[in-house]
Amino acid sequence: MKLYDLAAADDSKRFSPYCWRIKLALAHKGLQCDTIPWRFTDKDKLPSPNDGKVPVLVDGEVVISDSWEIAQYLESKYPAPPLFQSEESRAHALLIKFWFEQEMHPLFGAILINDIYSFLAQKDKDYFRISRENRFGASISSLIPKTDENVARLGYMLGPLRAMLERQSFVSGASPGFADYIVFSYFLWARISSKIEIVSSEDIIEDYVGNMMRVPWIESLVRGV
Amino acid sequence: MKLYDLAAADDSKRFSPYCWRIKLALAHKGLQCDTIPWRFTDKDKLPSPNDGKVPVLVDGEVVISDSWEIAQYLESKYPAPPLFQSEESRAHALLIKFWFEQEMHPLFGAILINDIYSFLAQKDKDYFRISRENRFGASISSLIPKTDENVARLGYMLGPLRAMLERQSFVSGASPGFADYIVFSYFLWARISSKIEIVSSEDIIEDYVGNMMRVPWIESLVRGV
Repeated sequence: MKLYDLAAADDSKRFSPYCWRIKLALAHKGLQCDTIPWRFTDKDKLPSPNDGKVPVLVDGEVVISDSWEIAQYLESKYPAPPLFQSEESRAHALLIKFWFEQEMHPLFGAILINDIYSFLAQKDKDYFRISRENRFGASISSLIPKTDENVARLGYMLGPLRAMLERQSFVSGASPGFADYIVFSYFLWARISSKIEIVSSEDIIEDYVGNMMRVPWIESLVRGV
Repeated sequence: MKLYDLAAADDSKRFSPYCWRIKLALAHKGLQCDTIPWRFTDKDKLPSPNDGKVPVLVDGEVVISDSWEIAQYLESKYPAPPLFQSEESRAHALLIKFWFEQEMHPLFGAILINDIYSFLAQKDKDYFRISRENRFGASISSLIPKTDENVARLGYMLGPLRAMLERQSFVSGASPGFADYIVFSYFLWARISSKIEIVSSEDIIEDYVGNMMRVPWIESLVRGV
C-alpha cells in the first residue's frame, strides 16, 4: 500500500491531520504502508481518481481519496481489528468527524497557519497563502495578533472533550478507535507545526494526548513528534 | 416506574430536554412509566437520593437521578432493545451528550428563556429568573433582542449535524438510539416552549425532527407537540 501524505519543505515533516488519521488507522490494523511525500501544488502527481487533496491511498489496483472513505475501505477490506465496534459507533463517529472538521479545524488552522506557512515547500507558499486568505477572508499575518483569542475560543470548544475525559480514557471508551484518530490528529498537527501551547500542561486533554502517544501501535509512528 | 418530570403551570406542558431523553429511552424499550409533574421549587418533593433536579426515576426500591445515569440503569436492567449497540457507541454518545449540553444548550436556553418564563408556575418564576440571570450574567429580558443572533449562532453550531444528516438518517445510523434522544430532545424543548423558528422549514434538520416524530415508539409520546 502507498499513501500520499502532505509534507513540508522537509520531506520528513508530515503535518496533515487528515493524513494522520489514516496513518493511525493503518497502524491500528497492523498494516504496512509506504508514505509518499506530497505538496499542495503536486495536483498532477496524484493517481486517479482524486479530488486534488491528500490522503490518497493506493492498494494494488484500488485508489481511494477522502479520509472517511479510506477508513471505510480499510474496515471493509481488512476488518480485524475493527476501527468501529458497531454500525452505531461508526454513525456517531461521522458526527464527531464533522464536528471537529467544521468547528475545531478552523480554530486550529487560524492558530497554526503562520507557522505552517513558514515551513512549507517554496512552491507551495503562494498557493497556500492565497487559498487560506480566501477561506479566512483576511491576510494570514492578520491572524497572528488573534492567536490568544483563538486559543481561548478553542479551549472553550474543547470543553465537551474535557468533560468526557473525566469519565473515560478515550473517545471510543477503554481503548482508541477511529474517532480517537480523528480527534488526536488535531493535536499531532499542532505539535508538529508550532510551539504554541494549545492546551496547558495541566489540562486533562494533555494527558489524553500523552496516553495516545504511548498506545503500543501508535508509539513508533509518532516517535519524534 | 415513576418519572419526576418538569412541568409548566399547566400540568400537561412538559418541556425539559433532560426529561424528554429519558421518556424517549423508556419508549424505545417499550417500558411503561407514570410521569409526575414537578416544578423547580418542589425540591423537597423528590425521593432520595437526588441532586435537586429532574429527571428522577423510581423503579420499585431504586431511585436514580441524572439522565445519563438513568439511561445506564435502564440499559443494564432492561437490556432489550438496547439504547447503545456497543461499548464504543456508548462512549461516543457521552461525548455527543457533553457537546450538546455545553455548547447547544446555552444557545437554545438563551433563545427560549423568555417564553419559558411566561408559562412557568407562579411559584417557580422568581427561582427560574434569578438562577438563569446568574447563569447568563444578564437579565432574561435583555436576551430578547439577541434572539436573531443566537438563532444564527445555533444554526452555525448545528452545521455538523446537518452534514451528518446528508449521509445518514439518524445520529445512531439507520434507526434512532440514545444519542438521537439527546439531540432530538432539544428540538422538542424548542417546539414545546416557543414559536421561534430554530431551523427553517427547508433545513434538513427539520426533516430529521419530523422523521423522529414519526418513529413508531415515539409517535404517540409526542402527539400534540
